[in-house]
Parts: sequence; C-alpha cells; structure tokens
Amino acid sequence: MIEDNHSFIFPKGEKLSSNWFTGDAFLTPLLARDRNNDFALGSVTFEPGARTNWHTHPRGQVLMVIEGKGWYQEKGKAAQAIKKGDVVNIPENLEHWHGASASDKMVHVAITNYKGEENVVWLQPVTEGEYEKVNNNQ
Amino acid sequence: MIEDNHSFIFPKGEKLSSNWFTGDAFLTPLLARDRNNDFALGSVTFEPGARTNWHTHPRGQVLMVIEGKGWYQEKGKAAQAIKKGDVVNIPENLEHWHGASASDKMVHVAITNYKGEENVVWLQPVTEGEYEKVNNNQ
Repeated sequence: MIEDNHSFIFPKGEKLSSNWFTGDAFLTPLLARDRNNDFALGSVTFEPGARTNWHTHPRGQVLMVIEGKGWYQEKGKAAQAIKKGDVVNIPENLEHWHGASASDKMVHVAITNYKGEENVVWLQPVTEGEYEKVNNNQ
Repeated sequence: MIEDNHSFIFPKGEKLSSNWFTGDAFLTPLLARDRNNDFALGSVTFEPGARTNWHTHPRGQVLMVIEGKGWYQEKGKAAQAIKKGDVVNIPENLEHWHGASASDKMVHVAITNYKGEENVVWLQPVTEGEYEKVNNNQ
C-alpha cells in the first residue's frame, strides 16, 4: 500500500463520460487554457481495460505516461505499448486512441493544444474486438 | 531502494550549467518546440539545496511537481512551499526562482512557452543569504 501511495502524483479525479471512454477512466484537470498556455492540462487515469474512443486533435496532443502500462494506436497501424516515462507526441488530425492494457492501469498527463475553440473531435468507440486483438498480440 | 526507484518517472539527465543554477540540478528534455507545441517540455531534478537563478519567462511557464519538496518565490513576496502534485502557473515577465528545499530533493516537469525565439531570461543567482532565509522561516 505504501508503494502504491508513493506513486500517485495527482488525485484520480472524476469519472469520464461513457460517451467518449470505455471502462473506468478518470480526469483531474490541472490547468485550463489561458493567455499564455494555449492548451488544457490534465491527468487521466485508466483502470485496466479502460480506453478512449477513437478521436483526433486539431492541433495535436502530448502524453506523458506517469504510471503503469497501456496502448497508443494510430488508425491502420499496429498499437504501440506505452509505459511510465514514455512521451507521445500525437500529430494533428490523426485518428487514434489510447488507454490502459487489459491487465494494468495507466496514468498519463495530457497537454492538449487548441485550434480556435476546439481541442478534440470524438469518434466511435474502440470495440471489444479491436481492443482484444491489440492485447492478445502481445 | 525499490520504493525510490518506483518514484522515478524520467531519467535524471544532464547537469545544468552553474551559470544559471546553484548546486546540483539536472535536465531531461522531453520534447522540443514544434509546429503544434509552442513550448519546450522537460523534467528538472534539483538535489537538496539546488535552485535556479532568478529569471523571467516572456510567455510564462507551468511547473508540475512530480517528486519531493521545494520552493517557488516571486520577487518581493514570501516563498511558497511546493510539493509532489502541485502545479504552478508562472506569469510572463515576473522575476522568480524555484528549486529544492535545503533538506529534500525536488523534481518538476516544466512546460516553457515561447515568445518568438525566447522562453527564458536568466538573471542573478539566489544568494546563500536569500536561500537560507527562505528555508529557516519554515
């Protein structure tokens, strides 16, 4: 228990909507866009099996994995395993998803850049079939 | 030792210059400015007693403390104690310093926004007297 506590940097936060996430994903907002910072900053916790829907960012997003293990997949490509200490620089307008692995939780800080008033476009869920294929190919 | 390892997210990196830092401070660059990200991203480790010089950022900086305890001080104000989990949104053109406490290390991720080609203006060191005053007032 001490070891677990030691690794938690930010609070788990509020559960994210099942409209855009599958499973138990949580957000702690860390900073809202302001005059200097043209991005939203937040810590997202994915319990095992949890993941985003497929989505795009009009001006990209940077992920810093601060705990656990998970996946990042761009449409039409093999999923990439991501783990604590990894940084992912997601290009603009590229369909992708990210989330925990089936067996491990994953926590990342996200820096989500704005283009105009928009920083994300949500698409369809990652199906059980798509998710199982990624996890079973490990 | 296991507990300590568990808390390290990013490598410690390379020692930072004594021109701009007092004591043992280290940087791991995480991401350089690019077409979407108008900032530099890096993890900075301050050993106990280490700190930045006084400095300003022309378009501000965001700090996320991911380990340990330290100080953030704006010129003419009392120093603020900062610790793991704290986020500091530093305004533009405001003289300040940050670093570890005298007895604890401190690690933060820094998001440093650019204005034109510049993201920091370095000033004079935080003197031993200034630093001792902050630590002894605790």
